[in-house]
Amino acid sequence: MTLNVEKPYVVGMDIGGTNTVFGIVDSRGNVLTSSSIKTQQYEKIDDYVDAACTKLLELVNTVGGVEKIKGLGIGAPNGNYYKGTIEFAPNLPWKGVIPLAKLFEERLGIPTALTNDANAAAIGEMTYGAARGLKDFIMITLGTGVGSGIVVNGQLLYGHDGFAGELGHVIVNREGRLCGCGRHGCLETYCSATGVARTAREFLVARSEDSLLRNIPAEEIVSKDVYDAAVQGDKMAQDIFEYTGRILGEALANAIAFSSPEAIVLFGGLARSGDYILNPIKRAIEENVLKIYKGKTEILLSQLKDADAAVLGASALGWEVGKTV
Amino acid sequence: MTLNVEKPYVVGMDIGGTNTVFGIVDSRGNVLTSSSIKTQQYEKIDDYVDAACTKLLELVNTVGGVEKIKGLGIGAPNGNYYKGTIEFAPNLPWKGVIPLAKLFEERLGIPTALTNDANAAAIGEMTYGAARGLKDFIMITLGTGVGSGIVVNGQLLYGHDGFAGELGHVIVNREGRLCGCGRHGCLETYCSATGVARTAREFLVARSEDSLLRNIPAEEIVSKDVYDAAVQGDKMAQDIFEYTGRILGEALANAIAFSSPEAIVLFGGLARSGDYILNPIKRAIEENVLKIYKGKTEILLSQLKDADAAVLGASALGWEVGKTV
Repeated sequence: MTLNVEKPYVVGMDIGGTNTVFGIVDSRGNVLTSSSIKTQQYEKIDDYVDAACTKLLELVNTVGGVEKIKGLGIGAPNGNYYKGTIEFAPNLPWKGVIPLAKLFEERLGIPTALTNDANAAAIGEMTYGAARGLKDFIMITLGTGVGSGIVVNGQLLYGHDGFAGELGHVIVNREGRLCGCGRHGCLETYCSATGVARTAREFLVARSEDSLLRNIPAEEIVSKDVYDAAVQGDKMAQDIFEYTGRILGEALANAIAFSSPEAIVLFGGLARSGDYILNPIKRAIEENVLKIYKGKTEILLSQLKDADAAVLGASALGWEVGKTV
Repeated sequence: MTLNVEKPYVVGMDIGGTNTVFGIVDSRGNVLTSSSIKTQQYEKIDDYVDAACTKLLELVNTVGGVEKIKGLGIGAPNGNYYKGTIEFAPNLPWKGVIPLAKLFEERLGIPTALTNDANAAAIGEMTYGAARGLKDFIMITLGTGVGSGIVVNGQLLYGHDGFAGELGHVIVNREGRLCGCGRHGCLETYCSATGVARTAREFLVARSEDSLLRNIPAEEIVSKDVYDAAVQGDKMAQDIFEYTGRILGEALANAIAFSSPEAIVLFGGLARSGDYILNPIKRAIEENVLKIYKGKTEILLSQLKDADAAVLGASALGWEVGKTV
């Protein structure tokens, strides 16, 4: 860590469909300062890079300038680690293949690496969070969609093209719900926050029992409403988590047969629903896993602070790219 | 390869439920000489090791003795690479955990490594066969069961406990066929040679059309009969391969979302059924894979000679263990 005396910080940048957030992070995972811009405001990629670099340099100058920064790590949807590109990201304004890492590296002179947001979360968890010291684990991000980052033998699994680890798009029910990807029955149509809200709407139609959820217009229900109802003892809400957790646990049992991880780390709003979702997940894993795996894989909750997690995850990649320079 | 002048050979040993086959292999993948013993004949592991070592030393002496042997690689069901053990293998005579690598290493003085048979096949394919030069691929063995060996970034995926890569036991239909593992709907209940025979029996009952398969007593049908009938234009037999290939392709589409391999290598009797099974596999993969993976993963057939493949695969592990000594 001798170099850190000269370059003690990394920059993490998380590109979401709505906001792009960046922060300066030290080696202990403290976010020293952060800022953001609106992603959707910039239709041209050059304008976006301009705006991001301007804001970013303001931050960087508060800690001593670019010479103090070891690397810039970017987490982005459809991010390709090998090429440093964003490729055909449906929720971003720029179409086709965008060489984003190169654009930032040329502008800032900081070594830059890019990966998708769930991979960034896995690296963040390994660097600063619940997966410190683990060599084989699977990160599952439960947000608007379901993302995953798979770590084997201490390394992120990128696959031959940089796109490995899309467990949210494993098909769990071939006659199931239509997914944003155009196919049917992907895991994320059931086990994302959006999936939970869909399940609530289905249950409200299919069942006749009373539920606190009937007090909310069906189209406005979000997963947080289901959680709030569950906490108040609402049976239907609790059943929705039971249903969600079971499907996720069954899918994770199959994932365990793939990489036999020592832990699965859950991140995102749904993961904070506590035992309502954790118990059915754990039960479904134990019931569905091959005998040789029984009782071996721990289910852990992310230890990254929610507000910082995406930036922290991306920043961890900054240490890695910094190593090679 | 300088050491190879002194130690130019490895020994490969394949432990099956019926036979244990071993052979001496050179660096080009030629099996110079081979032999076998009956696995089931030895109820005590010590008697088995005695018998195997006696036969093996006979072979080894024909090429100049143990000092010419770089390593011994063993492929065995339920083989644990990390520990060198066979653990609770249902089809072998020895119960519990057997420290097989250690037993052979102590007796022969040859560095010994052990892994399961499908992992051995993957290493064999990477060393001598269709996967030479590939860093990310999945080996699928279609035999009595369905086995798999997953290679990521040039390394076999062992997982935290040595048992990763059991794609034959991914559940593809939760209300499906009873599997030997005690669960329902595992891939291997449909896509193994045994699975094809089960499908044939189901189709014969469920359908009323004529078929060459009706000339065989239902309980005696094996997958080779289905192939022979398909070649003669039998519609039902062709449909059985269509059904089998589609289920395998759907499962492989999910596997691609996990590790994004550049190729999937198929090995075993069913893989030799040619286009009858390859076409539906390829079609199901393309129809079921996430858009970012479309057209990227090649389906290859094993290039290892069938009679030698298991021994060759195991022997390739002998080069690896030999490296560390």
